[in-house]
Amino acid sequence: MENEKIVERLALLRDKMQQNGIDFYMIPTADFHNSEYVDKHFKVREFFSNFSGSNGTLIVGKKETGLWTDGRYFIQAENELRGTGISLFRMNEDGVPTIIEYLETEMQAGDTLGFDGRVADCNFGKKLEEKLGQKGAFIKYGMDLAEGIWVDRPTLPCHEVFILPEDICGQTCEEKLEKVREKMREKNASYFLLSKLDDLMWLFNIRGMDVTCNPVALSYGFVTRKECFFFLQQGAVTEAFRQYCEKYNIILKDYHEITKFLKEYSYEGAVLYDAAHLNYALYSTVSEKAQMINAANPTEALKAVKNEVELQNMREVFLRDNVIVTKFIYWLKKNIGKTPLNEYTAAMKLDSMRRQAEGFLDLSFETIAGYKENAAMMHYEATKENNKQLEPEGMLLVDSGGQYLGGTTDITRTIVLGEISEEMKQHFCAVAAGMLRLTNANFLYGCTGRNLDILARGPVWELNMDYKCGTGHGVGYILNVHEGPQNIRWKFVEGQKECALEEGMIVTNEPGVYREGSHGIRTENVLLVRKGEKNGDGQFMHFETLTFVPIDRAALDQKYLTKTDIKLINNYHKEVYRRIAPYLTEEEKEWLKAETMPI
Amino acid sequence: MENEKIVERLALLRDKMQQNGIDFYMIPTADFHNSEYVDKHFKVREFFSNFSGSNGTLIVGKKETGLWTDGRYFIQAENELRGTGISLFRMNEDGVPTIIEYLETEMQAGDTLGFDGRVADCNFGKKLEEKLGQKGAFIKYGMDLAEGIWVDRPTLPCHEVFILPEDICGQTCEEKLEKVREKMREKNASYFLLSKLDDLMWLFNIRGMDVTCNPVALSYGFVTRKECFFFLQQGAVTEAFRQYCEKYNIILKDYHEITKFLKEYSYEGAVLYDAAHLNYALYSTVSEKAQMINAANPTEALKAVKNEVELQNMREVFLRDNVIVTKFIYWLKKNIGKTPLNEYTAAMKLDSMRRQAEGFLDLSFETIAGYKENAAMMHYEATKENNKQLEPEGMLLVDSGGQYLGGTTDITRTIVLGEISEEMKQHFCAVAAGMLRLTNANFLYGCTGRNLDILARGPVWELNMDYKCGTGHGVGYILNVHEGPQNIRWKFVEGQKECALEEGMIVTNEPGVYREGSHGIRTENVLLVRKGEKNGDGQFMHFETLTFVPIDRAALDQKYLTKTDIKLINNYHKEVYRRIAPYLTEEEKEWLKAETMPI
Repeated sequence: MENEKIVERLALLRDKMQQNGIDFYMIPTADFHNSEYVDKHFKVREFFSNFSGSNGTLIVGKKETGLWTDGRYFIQAENELRGTGISLFRMNEDGVPTIIEYLETEMQAGDTLGFDGRVADCNFGKKLEEKLGQKGAFIKYGMDLAEGIWVDRPTLPCHEVFILPEDICGQTCEEKLEKVREKMREKNASYFLLSKLDDLMWLFNIRGMDVTCNPVALSYGFVTRKECFFFLQQGAVTEAFRQYCEKYNIILKDYHEITKFLKEYSYEGAVLYDAAHLNYALYSTVSEKAQMINAANPTEALKAVKNEVELQNMREVFLRDNVIVTKFIYWLKKNIGKTPLNEYTAAMKLDSMRRQAEGFLDLSFETIAGYKENAAMMHYEATKENNKQLEPEGMLLVDSGGQYLGGTTDITRTIVLGEISEEMKQHFCAVAAGMLRLTNANFLYGCTGRNLDILARGPVWELNMDYKCGTGHGVGYILNVHEGPQNIRWKFVEGQKECALEEGMIVTNEPGVYREGSHGIRTENVLLVRKGEKNGDGQFMHFETLTFVPIDRAALDQKYLTKTDIKLINNYHKEVYRRIAPYLTEEEKEWLKAETMPI
Repeated sequence: MENEKIVERLALLRDKMQQNGIDFYMIPTADFHNSEYVDKHFKVREFFSNFSGSNGTLIVGKKETGLWTDGRYFIQAENELRGTGISLFRMNEDGVPTIIEYLETEMQAGDTLGFDGRVADCNFGKKLEEKLGQKGAFIKYGMDLAEGIWVDRPTLPCHEVFILPEDICGQTCEEKLEKVREKMREKNASYFLLSKLDDLMWLFNIRGMDVTCNPVALSYGFVTRKECFFFLQQGAVTEAFRQYCEKYNIILKDYHEITKFLKEYSYEGAVLYDAAHLNYALYSTVSEKAQMINAANPTEALKAVKNEVELQNMREVFLRDNVIVTKFIYWLKKNIGKTPLNEYTAAMKLDSMRRQAEGFLDLSFETIAGYKENAAMMHYEATKENNKQLEPEGMLLVDSGGQYLGGTTDITRTIVLGEISEEMKQHFCAVAAGMLRLTNANFLYGCTGRNLDILARGPVWELNMDYKCGTGHGVGYILNVHEGPQNIRWKFVEGQKECALEEGMIVTNEPGVYREGSHGIRTENVLLVRKGEKNGDGQFMHFETLTFVPIDRAALDQKYLTKTDIKLINNYHKEVYRRIAPYLTEEEKEWLKAETMPI
């Protein structure tokens, strides 16, 4: 059995813990930059637990080993942890302790918690420090116990960076640095330590390939009022980039020198940093020497508001991507029941169609193709070895996206392959209605995602159901498919900042219904925030849709939709046909015509 | 001209300021308890400005006198300030400084700001202290400069308190005190200083009559872990209440002794207080002697969740009140164009109908009857001298409520008196649709008003309009018509706490459209928060409606409503007829039948 290996590895880890005087060992899921996706090199938690979801923390304690993950992964984690002896802690469920609460309860005075401080964000590290300190417990953050156990561990990824042309960026890195320095002045910061990779790429108008699906290079930035230091692996530096740095007065340093540099630097003012993204080890290095100002990276909000050049490129890229997904749906419907297909081969087909597109760089995340009950696992990923055969019945959920020179896409459609139940139709209609109600919102400037979430979620709540995630997230520009600070969520978290939706921001709109053991439905479009009328009552805002791909007619039934929702669907489909048809073959066009007819 | 008096009074005030070394004098609108409505005795700001709205702060500066008020009162303030030379500062509008920003700009180092610290809340006082301190300016908070100028000032109100029977309260004051002490223990507080009048009435199960429309008595409470002191004016104490205090071990003290008592008390622990409600003078007294814990009064959240006895009484009281308002609408429609009527006489008629009702104690606020463009002033109040004649055309907005032995009501209907424009119908329909969409929401536990506001406001936003106030507020039980902590609002305020809607909470639902110079529409029902289905996705919540009064059919037009909204209206009207008809005359019943027919 596969998971016997896990049991062995955990035994080795416990030995090593004992040798190092460590009673509890924590393995978060992060690289040194708290990136969302992490390279193979950093998949220590998966190595020790077999759980492959994107979010999870493993705690190896004296008696118990626990894995914490969120609602998207409950079902997947249950499956993957089977036979490992690891207990699953379902985050945010009633009665389930948080990691810190768990450690506070389980650890005794004198106990030591170990973790690699480079892969823990400093907010979390500081909180651990405080809480465990109160208990009389200790922290050792300077070691990575996977060393020596994980013998065939992949090396740190390192790819050459490439410089984005100006007609792709719409703004030089000089202009961006000036805006960043303006924010530094506002915050009375003399220095800005930036370790968030997508922010670094945005700032310098470059891209890399060091993180799966995220076109980023492992790097750090240190911006002073006059200078700008950029830390990059030697192997990532090209001659062109060296010249580019000279042109813009960027001082190039070796990635691995960052700690030494920050230790030796003569600080004459405060350092701006973002506790949510800087790692705990690096934070500890600087905070010993300089005053620290914790604030959101100023690059975050600047990056989130796309400029006109970026927006125009995105519209073109989305159109290209919409055509591909529409053609894929046609292909799937045509072949189902005729050609043997499974979740994996279907995903491969879609990926290969994208790979042929103009300007394609990479997928923006691994394509999710979940058939029937597998779609209820929100971020299920079929593999070559482990997948479900597709039949001419039920529904296939496909969530996918691409990185193009000109934008990042993200789309989900749930495709009907044959007969489906009335309950499924009802759920499908609620999701479609919610998605389009949010799309068509008209709202005053100042609204944050919390004001709007109920528009998408309401029809699902009407059925006494919920989806255990936000409705939407920001999307990067040739960057991470998930980016902040904007989002569409409903939950109130005390003290949490919220971000007003600004013109030029991009958000996804992806309500869903997930029925464990039965089906999963998600329909996801990407929206651009636009200004509308301004009058005495204020600045009104609305969305421009970037995604035009049919919503499966076979699951839409008038009896589960209000007249208003039917009108929204029909209008949307009319627009889908108008925009996409010109790029289709006659056969495809005929099919799309029927698919987008008024219901 | 009326406002010459104001000019004279301000001149006298400036003289007095000079005598007292005061450069800027601030007159907030509050009693010693920061009550929403204040007795005549406390209307110093109105005395010096003629502005009679419920919210306003006057600043008399070296050169300029300014009045700050909120969006509800902009139009009214413009009218009332005419000829006074006072500048209007429209709060929350772009470019308008807050009071503190204004003082920071206008005051020089060495300048002194004077105000009566008993009528300023301590949060605001502390902030002033900090901000003006940074400027090198001073504060004098120990004087009320109205003394000597306002010669015929009414004395402090003082009425006997009455004890509520247990079948009205559903809980003894002993039980309530125990819950309060539990919250004190949670906060590590040894003492709890309570100065919020409605919380005091709730805690001791008594009511008073010292504040217009709020059945409260001027009082203070000081709760220790074992003792409970209650400060009440001598004239308010009855023999029955003296015995009641003995029975429950409440130590009675004179209201005017509070400062002396708090000054002399031997504190052996921290004092819990609510900075939003304690006055600055009293706060300063205690904070000199004891450690202070600033938190919401624990009574607030306890009071907001009504118990089953209270809810049953409220349902009965609302039914009684609904019948009265329905009969009033009938009467108005029958008499319009036949009997001379104006805003004031119409309001008087409604008030007199309420006064005859079983268990009637008082109005819950002064009835607002605004005809045509007057209704655009959100809290306009017609008077005997100053009112508009009603004609068989346009709309009359009536916002009113009663205090009954068994509950507090609040309802608005906008009544069509004759011909109205298509635009008015469209606005009326948007308001009705919004009100009923919020009413029919199904949502997960944890939602706060910010999640739900858009349901009511959305249809108004659709028309690129807004109403410059929240959608709803909490309602007291035989207490203040506005109470917290729950509300329905959309705006994000950083650091602001939000309150999840708990079963048993009461909120109003009152979207509106206000067109300056033309018309005002508001439709307000009162809702009770109820638990719905609980399943794996969480605890679902919904509202039970307490208000059943027809929404004027003459302004409802299918062409401005979605099919779904039409269904909501028809269902609501069916229920109005079912509940109200049994209490009407045959003639009224026939009319209501027609008024509640499906549209």
